[in-house]
Amino acid sequence: MKKAAILTIGDELLIGSIVDTNAAHLGQCLTELGIEPVWTLTVGDDAARIRHALDLCVSLADIVLITGGLGPTHDDVTKTVLAEATGDRLVFHPYLLDQIEEMFVRRGLAMPESNRIQAFMPERAVVLDNPVGTAPGFMLRHGEADVFVMPGVPREMKKMMAEQVAPRLQGHAGGRVILHRVLKTAGIGESSLFETIKDLIESAKDVRVASLPQEAGINLRLTVSAATGEEARQRIAVLETALRARAGSFIYGTDGETMEQTLGRLLTDAEVTVALAESCTGGLVCDRLTDTPGSSAYVERGVVAYSNETKKQLLGVSDETLRAFGAVSAQTAAAMAEGVRRISGTTFGLSTTGIAGPSGATPEKPVGLVYIALAHPEGVIVRELRLGTERRINKVRAATAAMNLLRLYLVDPAHIEKGI
Amino acid sequence: MKKAAILTIGDELLIGSIVDTNAAHLGQCLTELGIEPVWTLTVGDDAARIRHALDLCVSLADIVLITGGLGPTHDDVTKTVLAEATGDRLVFHPYLLDQIEEMFVRRGLAMPESNRIQAFMPERAVVLDNPVGTAPGFMLRHGEADVFVMPGVPREMKKMMAEQVAPRLQGHAGGRVILHRVLKTAGIGESSLFETIKDLIESAKDVRVASLPQEAGINLRLTVSAATGEEARQRIAVLETALRARAGSFIYGTDGETMEQTLGRLLTDAEVTVALAESCTGGLVCDRLTDTPGSSAYVERGVVAYSNETKKQLLGVSDETLRAFGAVSAQTAAAMAEGVRRISGTTFGLSTTGIAGPSGATPEKPVGLVYIALAHPEGVIVRELRLGTERRINKVRAATAAMNLLRLYLVDPAHIEKGI
Repeated sequence: MKKAAILTIGDELLIGSIVDTNAAHLGQCLTELGIEPVWTLTVGDDAARIRHALDLCVSLADIVLITGGLGPTHDDVTKTVLAEATGDRLVFHPYLLDQIEEMFVRRGLAMPESNRIQAFMPERAVVLDNPVGTAPGFMLRHGEADVFVMPGVPREMKKMMAEQVAPRLQGHAGGRVILHRVLKTAGIGESSLFETIKDLIESAKDVRVASLPQEAGINLRLTVSAATGEEARQRIAVLETALRARAGSFIYGTDGETMEQTLGRLLTDAEVTVALAESCTGGLVCDRLTDTPGSSAYVERGVVAYSNETKKQLLGVSDETLRAFGAVSAQTAAAMAEGVRRISGTTFGLSTTGIAGPSGATPEKPVGLVYIALAHPEGVIVRELRLGTERRINKVRAATAAMNLLRLYLVDPAHIEKGI
Repeated sequence: MKKAAILTIGDELLIGSIVDTNAAHLGQCLTELGIEPVWTLTVGDDAARIRHALDLCVSLADIVLITGGLGPTHDDVTKTVLAEATGDRLVFHPYLLDQIEEMFVRRGLAMPESNRIQAFMPERAVVLDNPVGTAPGFMLRHGEADVFVMPGVPREMKKMMAEQVAPRLQGHAGGRVILHRVLKTAGIGESSLFETIKDLIESAKDVRVASLPQEAGINLRLTVSAATGEEARQRIAVLETALRARAGSFIYGTDGETMEQTLGRLLTDAEVTVALAESCTGGLVCDRLTDTPGSSAYVERGVVAYSNETKKQLLGVSDETLRAFGAVSAQTAAAMAEGVRRISGTTFGLSTTGIAGPSGATPEKPVGLVYIALAHPEGVIVRELRLGTERRINKVRAATAAMNLLRLYLVDPAHIEKGI
């Protein structure tokens, strides 16, 4: 098995101003490619230390992945250090300057002179384009190792790793294939989920299952190592089929798929529309649903009704309902969902109301009490949630639960009748 | 200044199953103690590699902080490696076994035999008690370095670091204090910002300035090392004052402060209210503003007007405006902000409309074209933004720009007139 070292560069990592998520991401990618990460090293923006770290990495590994220090400022020295180490000159690439300038033009800005430096590359380097930032990366042979240098901004690094570095590393993996698949669940707790599927996990000895609790729910990561990709996929598929037969309604997506993407697909396929009436989630349901390209086809509108006045004026909730049951109640949640559906003329209305915290609680209505409601062509469904005490987490969990309610209805309205 | 190396041990870190937060925490602690972290190294649970990494750390640093590999299982080998390196025998401490057994008794459990190993220590080690877990740590002199070994569980490590390691490191700092301060900016690019303040940074030789690009804008981190805390604070303050005189309107917060918190504070202090009319940001402005506890006092409502129908029905945008200029136009942005302000009766109306991408572009209106508008008691201000091609990033940047427009107005309406 080929060996890899990861070198992350930046004072901000070393002194702990930011947590190094790049190293973990690259470790995952390497493992999935069947390449063994042997160590991760972090140094600051200091040429001598970067050089020392580079030499160590090259002496230990066949592949070295480096992130950071490719920016336009005086403390970005990665490229100079690499060029010195390999004895390359830095040469100017006019087409890179054009790309960088274009990036500024698109934003209506003039390129500052300092960005010019980003168009220089070690002469023998293979350039790795950066379609989402101004710092191109590169690949260079140094001693016995292949060295890949990527920007430190996580989003730019991830894209470059996925599209340009990983494909070049495929050949290094040497035989065994490691495959992961993540099944994402919502609406069930970790222990209940494991009690439901425990025997399946134990009898599938060739597939390892890890439980990864997330804010939105529990993710199950299935991992298999096999001689061929076909064999690996088959083993995963056998266990996945068994898990879906047992707990399928809780599984809303796989791998990188989000709840909002799944829901968007279901709404598109059914050719239906939805309008949101949010109180305690403050617009988060609408924000997430509109993250998906093309969502304007099924999201007609969103109303964030923080005040009672807005609940009455834009959602048609009656004074009587608000007075008799309060803004945080099953009745108000139902009236909000029905109101937004009626006024906007959509297929569905989806609402949230609750006490996100930390203040606003009463003896009968504690922090974390949330009602979600779905108005559909045949009526309205309301669910009560008892969440925690942290405001942001409560918003995220309530938003996920609301989207999951609509997802369950779209998959099979019978789920709802069974009270899942 | 004394130098320190951090060594974190664990397969799960290396393959990226979990992100290494221990390294960042220890980097912060060292910096605050006036000790310079020179590198962070991560290796898996492998005796030969741990030994290699240990030797490197000891050769580079006066202080080595190690976490992980102190558990009761076969792959916890940190203690054995340390003892071999220093030539110490492992000796049994009956009082440690008592403590570990007691930890199990308190949880109503019997101690498994495997935990016995945790009561062994290198003979010359100073034991560091672990009041919240079963793995005691230790301190050992190795060559010219002081080596501190702590458990990998973050909560146990943090307590041991704060209560037992940090006090022992005070003496190493040589009396110097290191202080950081982060100034968070929005509305200006990295290179333009540096051109504006370059001479200030260069002439302030005793304070180092690092640039940390974030989605919302550029953060400037000021770092100073001084003989006393008072002196450090003074030096930071001198540079901060100069930076604010030059680029103060771009600075929206310091250290952990977010744009929404700053804006919430300004709205509260001024006793004013705001209503949102969002199109391309899809509810994100409202979501972020309502993340702050107590935001119901100043956020009256939010309308996510994805459809033209909603723009007309809930915001009073006229058919003529939509027909003549289109939904993505300065005129519609202004009408949305004025409409939501008028209908909700708030002090301010804030709107966004644009092409978030990836589709929806026309030759005249490319992806990334966004208009934001602020309706205030005396009129309306519109700004055009040219963002990038990624949907989520465009939403985040447009939302930040909209909040920043209101922030600038609240700080000093004159900023707006100057076109900042």
